[in-house]
Amino acid sequence: MAATGAGASGPPAETVAAAFRRVYDTLKAELLRDPCFDFNDDATQWLDSMLDYNVLGGKLNRGLAVVESYKLLKAASGTEPNEEELFLACILGWGIEWLQAYFLILDDIMGNSQTRRGKPCWYRLPKVGLIAINDGLVLRSQISRIFRRYIYGKSYYVDLVDLFNEVEFQTTSGQLLDQIATNEGRKDLSKYNVACALLLFGESLDNYGQVKRILVEMGVYFQSQDDYLDCFGEQEVIGKIGSDIEDFKCSWLFVQALERADEKQKGVLFENYGKSDPACVAIVKDLYNELDLQWVFSEYERESYENLISAIEAQPNEAVRSVLKSFLHKIYKRRK
Amino acid sequence: MAATGAGASGPPAETVAAAFRRVYDTLKAELLRDPCFDFNDDATQWLDSMLDYNVLGGKLNRGLAVVESYKLLKAASGTEPNEEELFLACILGWGIEWLQAYFLILDDIMGNSQTRRGKPCWYRLPKVGLIAINDGLVLRSQISRIFRRYIYGKSYYVDLVDLFNEVEFQTTSGQLLDQIATNEGRKDLSKYNVACALLLFGESLDNYGQVKRILVEMGVYFQSQDDYLDCFGEQEVIGKIGSDIEDFKCSWLFVQALERADEKQKGVLFENYGKSDPACVAIVKDLYNELDLQWVFSEYERESYENLISAIEAQPNEAVRSVLKSFLHKIYKRRK
Repeated sequence: MAATGAGASGPPAETVAAAFRRVYDTLKAELLRDPCFDFNDDATQWLDSMLDYNVLGGKLNRGLAVVESYKLLKAASGTEPNEEELFLACILGWGIEWLQAYFLILDDIMGNSQTRRGKPCWYRLPKVGLIAINDGLVLRSQISRIFRRYIYGKSYYVDLVDLFNEVEFQTTSGQLLDQIATNEGRKDLSKYNVACALLLFGESLDNYGQVKRILVEMGVYFQSQDDYLDCFGEQEVIGKIGSDIEDFKCSWLFVQALERADEKQKGVLFENYGKSDPACVAIVKDLYNELDLQWVFSEYERESYENLISAIEAQPNEAVRSVLKSFLHKIYKRRK
Repeated sequence: MAATGAGASGPPAETVAAAFRRVYDTLKAELLRDPCFDFNDDATQWLDSMLDYNVLGGKLNRGLAVVESYKLLKAASGTEPNEEELFLACILGWGIEWLQAYFLILDDIMGNSQTRRGKPCWYRLPKVGLIAINDGLVLRSQISRIFRRYIYGKSYYVDLVDLFNEVEFQTTSGQLLDQIATNEGRKDLSKYNVACALLLFGESLDNYGQVKRILVEMGVYFQSQDDYLDCFGEQEVIGKIGSDIEDFKCSWLFVQALERADEKQKGVLFENYGKSDPACVAIVKDLYNELDLQWVFSEYERESYENLISAIEAQPNEAVRSVLKSFLHKIYKRRK
């Protein structure tokens, strides 16, 4: 569903997704029989189902994007990845998916969430509970195991480990701010997919400032979509029940409403925002409609797209341009 | 209180502890004004008090041990650390303390603990709650920031990052087993202090198998002490209220009791173990006394000490011998 492929040069999209999925089985099997720790049968079984539930639970778009970006970079320089390169791109992609699963497990506990990706959150399962915290940490440490096994000795090993540490730093720092006041950019892992592909392609991340700025912009846009869909998305499509209004989230919609509301409307907003009573939630949604926020969002979406396209066109490297455009088109007007 | 120093050659123990403590202030100040993230005043204040509460809360023995071990290694080779080397040893020591704080915050949540180091657990503070999970992750990512800033470019940077990843893997895997059945070796960070000092001393960890086995043995002994003190230690000295009996922990005492109990006593044990009722706890403690477990432990303690001393004496390297002995004497017959 995610892959558009690298055009005529690569294998069809199904094959990439299938190859990516097969690498998961390899990684899981190795983690379950890790020679550096003596897991008993119970622990092995726990790890097995924990991984399937959390790492496989999503659309795998982020991980596949690493593979696709890498193929685009190769295609733009006139070649295509060999088997080993493709395998390593899958490893890096799964690193992103593992990281995402780790953040989501812990975010859901802190946010007291009910559902995730159309299922109960992992910690909500009766057999799990707060053990889920350790499962999150297990996922994080497995990333290090995987990279240590497959990437150690490559020239970009240190950069890769540092990159994942930076993601962790940015994400936890963002979460800290979110818990105190705002919520900017916390789910924005997209720039790291591209960073992974660039590392594998042999690019140093030092010349990466411009690209990073574009990706940060895309991240802000992506986050506004998340906030929009939390309120106006279809529950069956996005796979979770939105609760930003109940949770007093400083979401894109809330900020827009504050900017546009008169004094009376502001009064209504503050009286009803952040309450779990469905009647209050309905009043907030009515106010959003009164302020025409669906139209405001579609205008914002169009402008963001145009600005991003011009910034991308200004990039000198064709391979990088094609990767960034492919990304933008994947998220533009998304419904989930 | 922890430092015995490196004998006549080094500065007195107070100075090491004071220098170590000063490095904390430097590290904290830098983390609070990290140029890679725009913390607002609230977030800065939060980080400030979170660090003081959790990282400074303990005895700092583990961190100081890195500095002391390194000084011992230097002394045994006839020199002493210069100012930069001492500073770097402190950095590595604080890495261990940060790691310990990170594990304890999350362990306490999972274990539903009340107190830690004589204070309420961090997550028990009304203003904190489950935000504490993110604070734990923040601490972990700060370790990477600190190492990246001070150790990047040194020959042992990759080994150090890998070592901390290994600690995380071993600890979370141990916690996983603990939650399912047993609880071996989960608080055993002592072998990593020594590993840090060896890295800084320029030793490869490849030749480290024998030393590691001794440290694992010491870790098992340390864990048995923990289990013993949980039941028989003085609450004011150990700084927490023991709850292994209530929590159905597979502790050293429980295992010993099972090995020594007759059928009737086993019945009593299983009827009362793992219950929060103080009357049940008292019955279990009576049974432990009936089975003379305080004497059994002191015998076990003596034997462990003798075995460890012979293993240490068999080590060829004098510097390594003196570090290991210094460790053993620090934990032998400890009361907290």
